[in-house]
Amino acid sequence: MNIKKVVVCGGGVLGSQIAFQSQFSGFDTTIWLRSEGSIGRTKPKLIHVKENYMKTIEKMNETHTPMDFARGIADSYENFDYEKSLEKVKEAYENLKIELDMEKAVEDADIVIEAMSEDLNAKIEFYKKLAPFLPEKTILCTNSSSLLPSSFMEYTGRPEKFLALHFANEIHKHNTAEVMMTSKTDPEVFDAVVQFARDIKMIPLQLKKEQPGYLLNSMLIPFLFAGFDLYVNGISTPNDIDAAWKYGTGAIKGPFEIFDIVGLKTAYEIVNALAVRFGESGPYNYKGQAQILAQKIEEGKIGLMAGEGFYKYDKEGNKIN
Amino acid sequence: MNIKKVVVCGGGVLGSQIAFQSQFSGFDTTIWLRSEGSIGRTKPKLIHVKENYMKTIEKMNETHTPMDFARGIADSYENFDYEKSLEKVKEAYENLKIELDMEKAVEDADIVIEAMSEDLNAKIEFYKKLAPFLPEKTILCTNSSSLLPSSFMEYTGRPEKFLALHFANEIHKHNTAEVMMTSKTDPEVFDAVVQFARDIKMIPLQLKKEQPGYLLNSMLIPFLFAGFDLYVNGISTPNDIDAAWKYGTGAIKGPFEIFDIVGLKTAYEIVNALAVRFGESGPYNYKGQAQILAQKIEEGKIGLMAGEGFYKYDKEGNKIN
Repeated sequence: MNIKKVVVCGGGVLGSQIAFQSQFSGFDTTIWLRSEGSIGRTKPKLIHVKENYMKTIEKMNETHTPMDFARGIADSYENFDYEKSLEKVKEAYENLKIELDMEKAVEDADIVIEAMSEDLNAKIEFYKKLAPFLPEKTILCTNSSSLLPSSFMEYTGRPEKFLALHFANEIHKHNTAEVMMTSKTDPEVFDAVVQFARDIKMIPLQLKKEQPGYLLNSMLIPFLFAGFDLYVNGISTPNDIDAAWKYGTGAIKGPFEIFDIVGLKTAYEIVNALAVRFGESGPYNYKGQAQILAQKIEEGKIGLMAGEGFYKYDKEGNKIN
Repeated sequence: MNIKKVVVCGGGVLGSQIAFQSQFSGFDTTIWLRSEGSIGRTKPKLIHVKENYMKTIEKMNETHTPMDFARGIADSYENFDYEKSLEKVKEAYENLKIELDMEKAVEDADIVIEAMSEDLNAKIEFYKKLAPFLPEKTILCTNSSSLLPSSFMEYTGRPEKFLALHFANEIHKHNTAEVMMTSKTDPEVFDAVVQFARDIKMIPLQLKKEQPGYLLNSMLIPFLFAGFDLYVNGISTPNDIDAAWKYGTGAIKGPFEIFDIVGLKTAYEIVNALAVRFGESGPYNYKGQAQILAQKIEEGKIGLMAGEGFYKYDKEGNKIN
């Protein structure tokens, strides 16, 4: 399973980053897009990714501090070559291919990474269309965050060569990749994807069984709800709850600071789904949490991006209360 | 409610630290101990606390970095006076009083902080004995970690002047104090204790209702169980789960590194109690978690202090695998 040719399907926020990082790491990479309209939306994203990489490289060169170090660019400051890194970014941008013809895009693909929208029916339609075009050798990965791969694996035509490869936003900085098997995935295919993740400078985090939320969100979400409950139930304030977590564990952010970064609309969607599912019987007061979030959203306090969520922020995004 | 005279009941690990910090902060402080035998056990603890403060002050003076800064010693490096701090430690050690006669110890106390062992019946006996000796003005606090103050407030004779004031270990470094009301606590008394916490250089974290585990453990414990479940259920390894948390959130430690610090015996006690209480129906696989911990404890792998828990450590306590 020698991976050389990479195809990323979808040119959204993550799709464009994954494709860029793959090309940047020396893989012959193609983005497949659905239509001319998609090209119009993806090109500015690629320009943004390129500029983001260049800014990151400039900063790494300026400060030479661990805080600014992006492990997706180089594995250590010793191996960081400023000029060469900039050159590689330019090359990646020039050499990254875009293709509208699905059959042509995947005709010799060693790995196809699906990064389409999080809609089960759209994914099923996509896999049904894709499956007949795939060469036998092709490994197929989904970057889906919220849908389990098993919920559409039967449409891939190759469940044994299908698994999840899940990236974080700003992958050149947050360079973890969660690699997750289904019950049908061939362990050798799994190992090949773990190696591919390393080869594109990711830290592979391995999941041997399906887990909704993968590793990170499986811990983050209960922690956020537990923190939120202390507020909803009238125990304490966001400020003191955040302080307890930060002083107690040395963490950089407390739960309410994280909610403000994630955005209260996203938080609401998650909490409200749980409130509907569990009613009064869940482990946390989801209903009360959803009410507080709904109220804040109605007031336009949707988080850091809007200047206010649980806290207020100045134009640079610094907390002011 | 002008607090001048402080009495700490109990000279264990926390009791001796609380008393020392109170005297160090300029309060006239007495430790009440049950017997001559208790004095023999507490004196070495006070010497240890004194030496720990002095070491901390030396390090603050040497490095002048935020990492070594102990907020229980000074509120900022600007206000940190090396010579004066050492002098204050010596004075605190010399002036801290020990008293065996309970009536005499509390005769003019403005605040009494109970830091006895975590045994409900022992606490009830203690409060029954103490209550008749307390002047009317005295505010009464418990440092209990695992028992709710309401479970023994009726024996205090002054529920309106009774609440929890809960410290973390090494309070001169980890200077948060969780201040928690019961349904009976007078809000003015609560505010006075919040101010007292500030006056002994703590960051007061306020809880307006009772909450088992206070703020920190209410978040820490669900997070630790959620992380442990990913291992118990065969999803991933301690190493990858810890990596997901650290890379994903910028935290210093992952759940299994925290288990190794807390100690697997303490973790077992908590998990096993939940396994017994919830059986198969809890939100986490407590039974599976308890089995893994019991197995490790049997093998002597009880955590960092033993050189091995989920990870192996060298003599300096650095992870070696």
